[in-house]
Amino acid sequence: MTPQDPIAALKSLIGEAHVVTAPADMAPHLVEWRDRYQGRALCVAKPGTTEEVAAVLAFADRHGHKIVPQGGNTGLVGGGIPFESGEEIVLSLSRLNRVRDVDALNNTLTVEAGVTLQRAQEVAAEADRLFPLSLASEGSAQIGGNLATNAGGTAVLRYGNARDLALGLEVVLADGRIWNGLSGLRKDNTGYDLKQIFIGAEGTLGIITAAVLKLYPRPKALATAVVALSDPEAAVALLRHLEGESGGLVTTFELIPRIGLDFVLAHAEGTRAPLAQRYDWYVLVELSAGRGERLDTLLEESLAGAVDQGLVADAAIAQTDTQRADFWALRENLSEVQKSEGGSIKHDVSVPVSALPAFIARACAAVEERMPGIRPVPFGHIGDGNVHFNLSQPTDMAKSEFLARWDEMSTLVHGIVVEMGGSISAEHGIGRMKRDEIAQLKQGPALEMMRAIKRALDPNNTLNPGKVVWPADGAKA
Amino acid sequence: MTPQDPIAALKSLIGEAHVVTAPADMAPHLVEWRDRYQGRALCVAKPGTTEEVAAVLAFADRHGHKIVPQGGNTGLVGGGIPFESGEEIVLSLSRLNRVRDVDALNNTLTVEAGVTLQRAQEVAAEADRLFPLSLASEGSAQIGGNLATNAGGTAVLRYGNARDLALGLEVVLADGRIWNGLSGLRKDNTGYDLKQIFIGAEGTLGIITAAVLKLYPRPKALATAVVALSDPEAAVALLRHLEGESGGLVTTFELIPRIGLDFVLAHAEGTRAPLAQRYDWYVLVELSAGRGERLDTLLEESLAGAVDQGLVADAAIAQTDTQRADFWALRENLSEVQKSEGGSIKHDVSVPVSALPAFIARACAAVEERMPGIRPVPFGHIGDGNVHFNLSQPTDMAKSEFLARWDEMSTLVHGIVVEMGGSISAEHGIGRMKRDEIAQLKQGPALEMMRAIKRALDPNNTLNPGKVVWPADGAKA
Repeated sequence: MTPQDPIAALKSLIGEAHVVTAPADMAPHLVEWRDRYQGRALCVAKPGTTEEVAAVLAFADRHGHKIVPQGGNTGLVGGGIPFESGEEIVLSLSRLNRVRDVDALNNTLTVEAGVTLQRAQEVAAEADRLFPLSLASEGSAQIGGNLATNAGGTAVLRYGNARDLALGLEVVLADGRIWNGLSGLRKDNTGYDLKQIFIGAEGTLGIITAAVLKLYPRPKALATAVVALSDPEAAVALLRHLEGESGGLVTTFELIPRIGLDFVLAHAEGTRAPLAQRYDWYVLVELSAGRGERLDTLLEESLAGAVDQGLVADAAIAQTDTQRADFWALRENLSEVQKSEGGSIKHDVSVPVSALPAFIARACAAVEERMPGIRPVPFGHIGDGNVHFNLSQPTDMAKSEFLARWDEMSTLVHGIVVEMGGSISAEHGIGRMKRDEIAQLKQGPALEMMRAIKRALDPNNTLNPGKVVWPADGAKA
Repeated sequence: MTPQDPIAALKSLIGEAHVVTAPADMAPHLVEWRDRYQGRALCVAKPGTTEEVAAVLAFADRHGHKIVPQGGNTGLVGGGIPFESGEEIVLSLSRLNRVRDVDALNNTLTVEAGVTLQRAQEVAAEADRLFPLSLASEGSAQIGGNLATNAGGTAVLRYGNARDLALGLEVVLADGRIWNGLSGLRKDNTGYDLKQIFIGAEGTLGIITAAVLKLYPRPKALATAVVALSDPEAAVALLRHLEGESGGLVTTFELIPRIGLDFVLAHAEGTRAPLAQRYDWYVLVELSAGRGERLDTLLEESLAGAVDQGLVADAAIAQTDTQRADFWALRENLSEVQKSEGGSIKHDVSVPVSALPAFIARACAAVEERMPGIRPVPFGHIGDGNVHFNLSQPTDMAKSEFLARWDEMSTLVHGIVVEMGGSISAEHGIGRMKRDEIAQLKQGPALEMMRAIKRALDPNNTLNPGKVVWPADGAKA
């Protein structure tokens, strides 16, 4: 094993078949699925065990090779894509795909990093439990990536982000040491909570190889409604009203603007308007609970109270599972249909929930002033203060002309977000896309703390270099 | 301001009246409330603002003085008590006691570190919200200390530990820099989640000066029961049954052994047996929810189902608030009454919930074999896998003789805990009490990671030195 021939060395460590160098086989690992980033790599290494991951890292760290960890490659900020140098090793976790343990009485599931989110959900359901993390790419997204990026999704309001759903981790450190932190404990105050350091660090501080995940009771009943309202202020007030009435049973609370619903009805086959009249704003609401015969009644009575308070213009409660699916289809198609309306400039931002109505008003006005005819489509997780502030192009503009102004529009939107105490990356992370913007935006000693932690845990800058944060001022990989 | 006269320097920084040196005035800051630790100090500094905390730290860090942060001084492991050298500066946060913001629509409360837990609860209630953290010392415990120790308590099952209840922090770093991380965001993936590093670090990495806390809907209804069961296995099965039936509305699930109930009935005035017959084990159960007219029915029907399954021997549901208070008194007096039964050796341990029945059986058998006549009183947060495994002395033994065997019994109990994948400090932390034991128990690179983080954030070992972890092998403050 010599530093001169890293490919041969890696083959000896994890087996010849698992070190991919053929361009066609490497290709899917080198491009982001939205085609925004295209990189090159020395090879794609696919270790099959934690010990093999450790061996690869020990080798790389000793000989100055760089590691780009990759899960399902469903990220949106280029965090799992290598740079253009061709010198990095892509480390795919997909062969670490064992379910190690299901402990229904402890409400925990122990899985390796390469298990897909969907499979984790399915294994939980087989044990009559819920693993609540849920997001669009769950069929291919992997648990290791979900944790490394602190994934959000549609159930954060009730169950939290990925960070809140992990009780323990197994992590391979930069130099190849293995940390077994696979605790299934609800309470453990024996020193610093090390797992928190790796969750959301996008593979820059260690490689997550397995996790103990929290499970919840599987809801036995759902009550689902589409509610029409006059404005986002009413939506926030309605959320707090429903939470108070139900004692925290609200699982879904998703904002849909009129224009978004119009896009869905125009472009998504089989969808239909949920209410007879047209309104400016809608929310998709879902409550979930245990024994369910009374949940529809609770939702109906709570909505009636909201009508009395003037918060709600109209509402439809799903009477069947088919109707429930129809209502969900309105939300689930919202992202996709924007493609049919030309170019779309996207922002994944959050502000305090109480500030969200003002943010939407201010940001819509600002982009409309800057570009007359632009069509803002703010939608999504209003209960988390997180809207996908997407902008569809004016109907009379060329798509390329519109998309050329992405940075200009983003600077405008992000400026308002920051002024209002918000985040320019609510769910998607930093990766390479927002690294330099973050370096500008972080206040006080935050950036220097991040760098100090990076240097402490990855002194040779082996792990995903150039993503999230440079280890020192002016450093470049 | 000279290093030669630190008292004078501190007085010039935060005002003469706020640098306490008179022995009588320092005394309450130098002793743990259970009298287990007694230290000495150069002075007690009581800054009134974050900027003054920063000035004290900048001075101390530059001139080699050591800082022992202290909140309400209700800790149980000596974390807030200085050592015996007399050279440390106790930094009391109690004058930072302002409520900075209540944002009911964002479900957040922003308070300074010195606000008591009880006041935070009251401020939340005034806004028709719940701040769920709840523990015995809440009248004097302060939010800064609650977060620095990641406090647990009786509502963890539903709402999580203190860590789970903080959205943002303001922290003064070792060298006096102020990090304003007072975010009220539910989703923010812009880099490493720095607040996690300071929560539970017991003041060894930075001084928490303010926090944004999560609020919840205030329950409008409670349903409370005392349930009798044959053994802890039945208790765990009952918990999962009730969670499934109620969809996660179980807020309290506390184990009470027969002997514990006997102690309470014998020594706590005004208490009475909740059920006509005697049983070996009990749990105090509480559900909480929004609109409440049906909650008692839900609990009653769910318990009836559990009786049918053979999980429950008998149960009483509180019919009035007085009866609810009576039931709670049985649990709340459990700690105190053990004093009336002579010496008590206490353990704050956790294991996976599924392993708790086996742990109780094994640990009881082991201590009874080692010391015939010993009376184990395992009680508490069974839903968190966290029992207070307390041991009352044999009735025919001298208290001093019993307490002299504390370390022997703890080594025995902790050995079983560790074998079963548990924690020897579930809630209370490390402080000085368990520092050396933890250094022995941590596996693999965990201890070295803790040290690397300590060195990265507090290179001069200014903050609470000798608590939690030494910064290097063999280092001694």
